[in-house]
Amino acid sequence: MSSNTFGKLLSVTTFGESHGPAIGCVIDGCPPGIAIAPEDFVHDLARRATGKSRYTSQRHEADDVEILSGVYEGRTTGTPIALLIRNTDVRSKDYSEIARTFRPGHADYTYWHKYGIRDPRGGGRASARETTMRVAAAVLAKKWLRERHGVEVHGWMAQMGDIVPAMPTGAAIDFGVVESNPFFWPVAAQVPELEARINALRKAGDSCGARVNVVATGVPPGWGEPVYGKLDGELAAALMSINAVKGVEVGAGFASVAQKGTQHRDEMRLDGFTSNHAGGILGGISSGQDVLVSIALKPTSSLPTPGRSVNLDGEEVEMRTTGRHDPCVGVRATPIAEAMVALVLMDQALRHRAQCGDVGAMAPRIA
Amino acid sequence: MSSNTFGKLLSVTTFGESHGPAIGCVIDGCPPGIAIAPEDFVHDLARRATGKSRYTSQRHEADDVEILSGVYEGRTTGTPIALLIRNTDVRSKDYSEIARTFRPGHADYTYWHKYGIRDPRGGGRASARETTMRVAAAVLAKKWLRERHGVEVHGWMAQMGDIVPAMPTGAAIDFGVVESNPFFWPVAAQVPELEARINALRKAGDSCGARVNVVATGVPPGWGEPVYGKLDGELAAALMSINAVKGVEVGAGFASVAQKGTQHRDEMRLDGFTSNHAGGILGGISSGQDVLVSIALKPTSSLPTPGRSVNLDGEEVEMRTTGRHDPCVGVRATPIAEAMVALVLMDQALRHRAQCGDVGAMAPRIA
Amino acid sequence: MSSNTFGKLLSVTTFGESHGPAIGCVIDGCPPGIAIAPEDFVHDLARRATGKSRYTSQRHEADDVEILSGVYEGRTTGTPIALLIRNTDVRSKDYSEIARTFRPGHADYTYWHKYGIRDPRGGGRASARETTMRVAAAVLAKKWLRERHGVEVHGWMAQMGDIVPAMPTGAAIDFGVVESNPFFWPVAAQVPELEARINALRKAGDSCGARVNVVATGVPPGWGEPVYGKLDGELAAALMSINAVKGVEVGAGFASVAQKGTQHRDEMRLDGFTSNHAGGILGGISSGQDVLVSIALKPTSSLPTPGRSVNLDGEEVEMRTTGRHDPCVGVRATPIAEAMVALVLMDQALRHRAQCGDVGAMAPRIA
Amino acid sequence: MSSNTFGKLLSVTTFGESHGPAIGCVIDGCPPGIAIAPEDFVHDLARRATGKSRYTSQRHEADDVEILSGVYEGRTTGTPIALLIRNTDVRSKDYSEIARTFRPGHADYTYWHKYGIRDPRGGGRASARETTMRVAAAVLAKKWLRERHGVEVHGWMAQMGDIVPAMPTGAAIDFGVVESNPFFWPVAAQVPELEARINALRKAGDSCGARVNVVATGVPPGWGEPVYGKLDGELAAALMSINAVKGVEVGAGFASVAQKGTQHRDEMRLDGFTSNHAGGILGGISSGQDVLVSIALKPTSSLPTPGRSVNLDGEEVEMRTTGRHDPCVGVRATPIAEAMVALVLMDQALRHRAQCGDVGAMAPRIA
Repeated sequence: MSSNTFGKLLSVTTFGESHGPAIGCVIDGCPPGIAIAPEDFVHDLARRATGKSRYTSQRHEADDVEILSGVYEGRTTGTPIALLIRNTDVRSKDYSEIARTFRPGHADYTYWHKYGIRDPRGGGRASARETTMRVAAAVLAKKWLRERHGVEVHGWMAQMGDIVPAMPTGAAIDFGVVESNPFFWPVAAQVPELEARINALRKAGDSCGARVNVVATGVPPGWGEPVYGKLDGELAAALMSINAVKGVEVGAGFASVAQKGTQHRDEMRLDGFTSNHAGGILGGISSGQDVLVSIALKPTSSLPTPGRSVNLDGEEVEMRTTGRHDPCVGVRATPIAEAMVALVLMDQALRHRAQCGDVGAMAPRIA
Repeated sequence: MSSNTFGKLLSVTTFGESHGPAIGCVIDGCPPGIAIAPEDFVHDLARRATGKSRYTSQRHEADDVEILSGVYEGRTTGTPIALLIRNTDVRSKDYSEIARTFRPGHADYTYWHKYGIRDPRGGGRASARETTMRVAAAVLAKKWLRERHGVEVHGWMAQMGDIVPAMPTGAAIDFGVVESNPFFWPVAAQVPELEARINALRKAGDSCGARVNVVATGVPPGWGEPVYGKLDGELAAALMSINAVKGVEVGAGFASVAQKGTQHRDEMRLDGFTSNHAGGILGGISSGQDVLVSIALKPTSSLPTPGRSVNLDGEEVEMRTTGRHDPCVGVRATPIAEAMVALVLMDQALRHRAQCGDVGAMAPRIA
Repeated sequence: MSSNTFGKLLSVTTFGESHGPAIGCVIDGCPPGIAIAPEDFVHDLARRATGKSRYTSQRHEADDVEILSGVYEGRTTGTPIALLIRNTDVRSKDYSEIARTFRPGHADYTYWHKYGIRDPRGGGRASARETTMRVAAAVLAKKWLRERHGVEVHGWMAQMGDIVPAMPTGAAIDFGVVESNPFFWPVAAQVPELEARINALRKAGDSCGARVNVVATGVPPGWGEPVYGKLDGELAAALMSINAVKGVEVGAGFASVAQKGTQHRDEMRLDGFTSNHAGGILGGISSGQDVLVSIALKPTSSLPTPGRSVNLDGEEVEMRTTGRHDPCVGVRATPIAEAMVALVLMDQALRHRAQCGDVGAMAPRIA
Repeated sequence: MSSNTFGKLLSVTTFGESHGPAIGCVIDGCPPGIAIAPEDFVHDLARRATGKSRYTSQRHEADDVEILSGVYEGRTTGTPIALLIRNTDVRSKDYSEIARTFRPGHADYTYWHKYGIRDPRGGGRASARETTMRVAAAVLAKKWLRERHGVEVHGWMAQMGDIVPAMPTGAAIDFGVVESNPFFWPVAAQVPELEARINALRKAGDSCGARVNVVATGVPPGWGEPVYGKLDGELAAALMSINAVKGVEVGAGFASVAQKGTQHRDEMRLDGFTSNHAGGILGGISSGQDVLVSIALKPTSSLPTPGRSVNLDGEEVEMRTTGRHDPCVGVRATPIAEAMVALVLMDQALRHRAQCGDVGAMAPRIA
């Protein structure tokens, strides 16, 4: 029920503010016996980290994960796993200006209306810093999905501002390329163009949006629960809960509006489906095809370019964000989106096992 | 936890198959004292009903709601409200062909993999018939939102196939027009074109997708819970759980990918926000602006045009749907989308009252 | 979250008032493939039924269960199973006196304070009529526990007023005897004494309390979730939620207060535990021993003997209950207590399967 | 859903093992604006602490609470409050013997069957160390209940082994006396007898059980949710989830079995109820009377007196606990029981506010 908890059987509760003493999470319901160590978190946290490159904001965090509980002799015990990361790069002064003012496009105004109080330090709880713990928790989920079910979850940036990958629609993604550049971009030759765009935006004191795609391969048919626990419904909630996300698509997404039924429906042959407009989900349940989702991230509102706003004294003001500046927050969204997909899939896998045991595994399956 | 239950404090549990004896729901957590009677359900159920016009499938249901509990002398008592609708127009024979075959684009294949058994009568639990109870339950939510908070929830069709409303972007919607045609279309002059399109699709044995928009006006600032109970996150889950939905947008949605930050961020003046790209939600909490969402509905896969498939005997087959045929399922999606928005809003309103009481009500508020 | 829903994975939502049109329940999360038919409910509902004998109140209900959903060709499909029982023996006039008065010892006063409205017909939602659906839902749970795990759940009355079974402490219960008399009493020779006691109480316009014990045999080690989902914690909640229950014990219960540690702790040998003071649960998890619980039921407050009270006009009044009169509500509590134990066990079994799969099954086990 | 989370709207998730690096909790759903500081936790944690006196086990913990999140400038912000306590007195060697052996009466055997792995250090997650965080979290709940509703929660020991307080049944408890001795005993003159008993048990290598009572005063009528969220049902679950608890009573508890209905039912006059056998709860909802609960705690099984057991090698062994030894774990249970009562009450208060707003506050109320 808790609104800072994600997942029904594999549940992740996160806590912590951007510039408080620490952020952390508690992972409950995790199966016992999974091998896990602090170093397992390094890779994905580095992929997400601000400061990864000069194309994201210049915050530098060690993001060292301390495992506080739930692991004994390197294996999960089935009890809650608490992870803790101390905030080390906290420069509160950057944010002093905004304590009595509402930044346009930020949660300042709404938090204040909801709670009558807000932690103005670095965005507080509304900061994308919170997503660090999603990525950390998903390290366990990705590991379990891979080892137990052969499921892999990979994301890439599919649009930055108006730049789209210079490749045919539907062409296979080379994840070697994706992982080799700081944009998670699938076409290496375009990286200089992206760099130039980021630099231009930074210089202009502006920002742009992005689209990030995620694919999960190897998902068996049968995961997902009708009707309010549908796999696509939970993916939508999970992805929309990421800071700055304004849209979610599954499979053909909004393109399906203009499709014909004879075109959209994925026909079946014994060697498999003939297409995947459904994005691997039918009736809220996985079909055995790749699960495909796509999200839209808005351009950040934290800009050095002044914006009009109001303050607690009921005055109209102009304000500019003087702290760190990400010209495209979507650059670091890829591992976060992957994390949410992985957490949803593992949770659904456990729920499927609870209700149906291995029944699905014994069913005939097209290729 | 139950996957057939929607909502945390205002919870709606639906049950029933398309061609079983009845469908129904149990609404729990409803505040006491709300006046409600069977006739209150008539209007919205008629708006949703199949058979409403010749542009949707020819199923005819009385959809008479029986209130089984939770109401005494015309008012809710705070105990669970059970609503029941008998299925009267059940023609099982229409579906006999599909018992051992998987219809392309349907949940047949995935239900069968999940459960090892499925109810083939009319789509069973995966049928859009289930959404009837969402609309019924939301009658209470809409009433409470209107009477207690002045919140109104209205939807309209914003695209059908490739046809878009012939009106300027962002122009005010005339809901009198929307309610006066079976398509919920905001431009009366285009209705003949829509009729012609539907007739052409029916003749061709094909179908098209649709986009439906919903706006909630009067939502006070402060509803929504960070970080996994965000208002937009829950709207996304709620809307994606509707049959045939493949995408969800809040505010500017996917258009925000190509926006600049200086363009997207909604600035604030004492007389209000200067724009609404956020769709009325910041940091997962309502801002006091109109809440705006948009969904993509795929073209139905139930077509008289044969499609390639497989059957339980491991054979490749061709199959056509011989029963009712909706050339555009999006035509009746408007009241369903409204229903899900209303249920999310009321649930969030109760959750806000639980945690914060009236704190938000006392906060200064821009126009 | 809904307060009329019981269970996390096997969830049962009940609805309906004592004298409304119907009572019912929705069972969600049930595994697919369980054979179930309306006649399967007859036995346990008859055991619980008022009117079973002249020793309980003279209400006569057919209690015919209609299966509205979730079952296809005699087997559960994995979708929600709705059960409905029409209230046929509704004599509203019996309760007209109490509409503006609070019966002593009843929920009248508290419902009214909570909701500002109450359904006075026969106790409304607070009536023990609600427990009918618990028994109905548990028919499925008992069946699944028996068929899949060999678990049996049996209850008996262990005290009525000050009468205790004339048998040595800890002696084996003969369930043939228990089922052969309307009191679920384990000693046949005492039945005439119980009958005399009931008759005397009825004549005196008074009532007495009861103690009911339940044992679950065959429960494997490993069911139950630390620390707030402990098996004993959930049994306590489940049993305390039954009307009139004022106390719950597991194993030695309150007797353990005066025990020594060397006496209470159950030692282990390879052929099993040497005693069962723990009641089959250690650290909130089943040990493989019999699970033993005991509950105290208060004497009913609905008496023809006048009691002092107040009314809605702020006057002091005397009132007597003129309707049905159960001299000992504990007489029909046995199947209800069994039902709650069965529902808790099945829910925990599914949760165990979700998190741990079959790990427990492979562990060495003492006899 | 998470089994290490307690509460629906005020939810407390605890983590940590007895001898791991730390224990902690995350409190979610807490209303904003409550003044809280690290020093507020000192008093109740000291009351609970082992090492408080020579009558409990000699573990010495500083139990310094670090507030990691959710508090800004000394007030709760409405976001999750994480509390952390480092384990400083960890002597792992004490527990080395038990790594491959199951201590009689402990969770060793059941954890191992459930998870196939266990953390043997000091009882791991099954240790009563976990209850520290319940007491810490309840500091907030007690504060809110007192400041907002005038509710006070107080406990005392009502039996130790076979020793009962030398005072008339139902006599008023002098909480000054209770708080002045390490046993929370209400009769000062008996403290030497209790000391002697503890010393004798320690010398004998044995232990005894205890009964602890808790009263909550000032609870308004209307808190509690029928039928599976009853106030008494949730108190039962909360109290039974405390280590070593084997029984829970509300009001007259098991004594009600032998009561007559005319005796048990609490009659009402305009100046209040004439008795309180119900323990302040009718139909699962508070009546405005004192809420009274009582629990039975078993004698600890961790004894220097050898007990028979088995080990992982399938051998029968004798084992004695060589570490700390509490002759009566009930001695420190009083603040823990208070904590669980306070957490249940605050959660129910928020739930009541969500559904019913202030309706209850406006209802007429007997004194």
